[in-house]
Amino acid sequence: MKFKTVQTLQKIATLIDAKFVGDQDFKISGINEIHVVEPGDIVFVDHPKYYGKALESAATTILINKEVECPNGKSLLISDDPFRDFNKITKHYYPFISSKESISASAIIGEGSIIQPNVFIGNYVTIGKNCIIHPNVTIYDNAVIGDNVVLHANTVLGADAFYYKNRPEGFDQLISGGRVILKDNVHIGASCTIDRGVTGDTTIGDGTKIDNQVHVGHDTKIGKKCLIASQTGIAGCVIIEDGVTLWGQVGTNSGITIGKGAVILGQTGVTKSVPGGKTYFGTPISESREKLKELAYLKRLIREEKKR
Amino acid sequence: MKFKTVQTLQKIATLIDAKFVGDQDFKISGINEIHVVEPGDIVFVDHPKYYGKALESAATTILINKEVECPNGKSLLISDDPFRDFNKITKHYYPFISSKESISASAIIGEGSIIQPNVFIGNYVTIGKNCIIHPNVTIYDNAVIGDNVVLHANTVLGADAFYYKNRPEGFDQLISGGRVILKDNVHIGASCTIDRGVTGDTTIGDGTKIDNQVHVGHDTKIGKKCLIASQTGIAGCVIIEDGVTLWGQVGTNSGITIGKGAVILGQTGVTKSVPGGKTYFGTPISESREKLKELAYLKRLIREEKKR
Amino acid sequence: MKFKTVQTLQKIATLIDAKFVGDQDFKISGINEIHVVEPGDIVFVDHPKYYGKALESAATTILINKEVECPNGKSLLISDDPFRDFNKITKHYYPFISSKESISASAIIGEGSIIQPNVFIGNYVTIGKNCIIHPNVTIYDNAVIGDNVVLHANTVLGADAFYYKNRPEGFDQLISGGRVILKDNVHIGASCTIDRGVTGDTTIGDGTKIDNQVHVGHDTKIGKKCLIASQTGIAGCVIIEDGVTLWGQVGTNSGITIGKGAVILGQTGVTKSVPGGKTYFGTPISESREKLKELAYLKRLIREEKKR
Repeated sequence: MKFKTVQTLQKIATLIDAKFVGDQDFKISGINEIHVVEPGDIVFVDHPKYYGKALESAATTILINKEVECPNGKSLLISDDPFRDFNKITKHYYPFISSKESISASAIIGEGSIIQPNVFIGNYVTIGKNCIIHPNVTIYDNAVIGDNVVLHANTVLGADAFYYKNRPEGFDQLISGGRVILKDNVHIGASCTIDRGVTGDTTIGDGTKIDNQVHVGHDTKIGKKCLIASQTGIAGCVIIEDGVTLWGQVGTNSGITIGKGAVILGQTGVTKSVPGGKTYFGTPISESREKLKELAYLKRLIREEKKR
Repeated sequence: MKFKTVQTLQKIATLIDAKFVGDQDFKISGINEIHVVEPGDIVFVDHPKYYGKALESAATTILINKEVECPNGKSLLISDDPFRDFNKITKHYYPFISSKESISASAIIGEGSIIQPNVFIGNYVTIGKNCIIHPNVTIYDNAVIGDNVVLHANTVLGADAFYYKNRPEGFDQLISGGRVILKDNVHIGASCTIDRGVTGDTTIGDGTKIDNQVHVGHDTKIGKKCLIASQTGIAGCVIIEDGVTLWGQVGTNSGITIGKGAVILGQTGVTKSVPGGKTYFGTPISESREKLKELAYLKRLIREEKKR
Repeated sequence: MKFKTVQTLQKIATLIDAKFVGDQDFKISGINEIHVVEPGDIVFVDHPKYYGKALESAATTILINKEVECPNGKSLLISDDPFRDFNKITKHYYPFISSKESISASAIIGEGSIIQPNVFIGNYVTIGKNCIIHPNVTIYDNAVIGDNVVLHANTVLGADAFYYKNRPEGFDQLISGGRVILKDNVHIGASCTIDRGVTGDTTIGDGTKIDNQVHVGHDTKIGKKCLIASQTGIAGCVIIEDGVTLWGQVGTNSGITIGKGAVILGQTGVTKSVPGGKTYFGTPISESREKLKELAYLKRLIREEKKR
């Protein structure tokens, strides 16, 4: 997430009441999670195990719970609770704004697009040309929708990431300020849920078609021309490359990658990353051919066992 | 799907700019997919493998991409892209009509039926007597609902079939013009999705009860007095005979048949058609007794293997 | 469920046109299912197998289909169809009241709570302080929601229990009059369905966080500080103790208990009760360690089998 205008180290330090290391006018242009940081960004780290990764990342300001040596050309924000203060910054620059109307006056809706009754469209949503948004759809703030997109009834774009820190007193949510981006020609079935990114975007590529009751987690990237059948659940931070087919009721772990053109058969649990161009089946996941051979051997073993 | 009035071969040929074989006044009364065609219907075929099936079907007009010999008493429409032209005919005779109001003025709602707030009811929907439609339900155009039907909140009847032709430039959707039909005494839980048929109907039989978050695909026929538990996903073109029980999170392949009175245990993947009167479990599906025996043998094998 | 005012045996007997055994002024304060009865309650029983359990329960009035000996200090209602008459009492004292407005005038909404557009809030709903209710949420009558609760878009609280008696002429629904109770700091994702209790309550404990598309059945009790990932389905009458984690697409049988702090891995079918403090996987459910060992042995067996 980028700020609307560039901020200074001192200004952010004052906002979160933190000590800082670096020039008071050091420029800060945004705030992001470690996997999507760019120069100008703040990143946060609260465990010594990840200090190195955060300090060496592309981020140029590190919000950290120990006063370590500041890398060259970077700055530090020292906080006793970086997670809390990261949330404080997100809340300040990306506040939740409640809506009085079903369709926000700040939403932009392209020529030829049809919005059916009972739809909710939040603040600063952009919808392209010749889209159809069916009844009872909910589109949270800041979503970006391309041309020729169809959203079937009761689908939800942009609910919060399911991302919590376990504290003794309760789960503490990492506040989501990211977006949902649907490229041109995407079709989404009825009653799907596509979560926003935490700080980045959840993106669905051009021409991808999704059936009913599919869940897509935060910050997941789905490629072009994929087919995703009903009741499939894709976790957060997943990468699905172009031309992938997921049949019904597939589930995935978070953070995995499914290679280009892979086919995942129904009810499979994608427990790890898999290369493209092949067909997979089962939980834990195997190549479909291997799995079928295994099942056949197993039948033979059992038949022989029965004879004894 | 039948046209409102009978059309002629010449009129349809002009609409799609196709050559025709047969009398220019040859009567055409509707358009259907191969599995539901009747005399008077147009059917389409675009692969030589299926020419015979289409030409010998009950359909009397064949929309085809080769000038073959015309069967007796039938007519042909010759097109370089029958799929595209089938869609053109559907769009012309069954256009999507956007709605200005939450409840269409053309909807018919029977005596004693309660429509709760925030419901969407599309054009030409018929609802019988003494029904309850709970809040945020979406009913697409042309659905037909019997008496004493209950639809729980946020359920969607009549979204498009998930049916695409894979073209090099992208997935091309077969436009759905079919209906959803719910017979008397059907109960549907919250957040279910029942897709319309492509050209035919998706039908749920008298007295069948469906739990929350169930998906039913296009053109599927569910019999009388079935019980379908939560999060089950039934694909398109499935036949479920009377008195079938599906427990939670069951999934099915498309086109299969589940016989009368069958019981399918939770999380089963119905990978093929199964006869009625029995209990089934597992993915791929087996008779439950057989599956349990297999699991027991397996435990014994593993116990012995451990001893070695 | 308690009546608003205490009733007498004679009054209830007249309502359902039943014979009674006991003092005509015998006090009746409510009506409940066997697993939640208290003194003052009516319970119903229609099978000799369960007569003993009903007569010995805490309930003080037994609605029964045989004139048995009346236990000391209790009363009987004799009916040829206790199920039908239990429904008659529920309907009389807890009638379904249709709504004219999207937010009932009888609903109580606490200070600082935000209700987004297109939400439905039924009669006598109570919402605490500083909650956010996102668009297109449906809250049925009588739900009780604590402070700092977040309900994401299109979620449904309080649809009817999926509970039917199989009669020759069709399934007969046990009418639900119970409630949904969400304690403080509960977060529910988008498009979830939490059913009401039949006569008791479906309860979700303080600080529990639930992801998108999760189903929770009637009368289920979920403890404090649980984490439940996307597309998990929890059946009716389940007990989930504090600090339990359920990963995605888990399913459970009804009536089971998951012990404190248990972790259930993705796609697991919780086919029976499991003790707390351990990690589980697979359908039927096993301890995760055991299951992984089994899978490894199996691989070895198959490898050896292949060599032969």
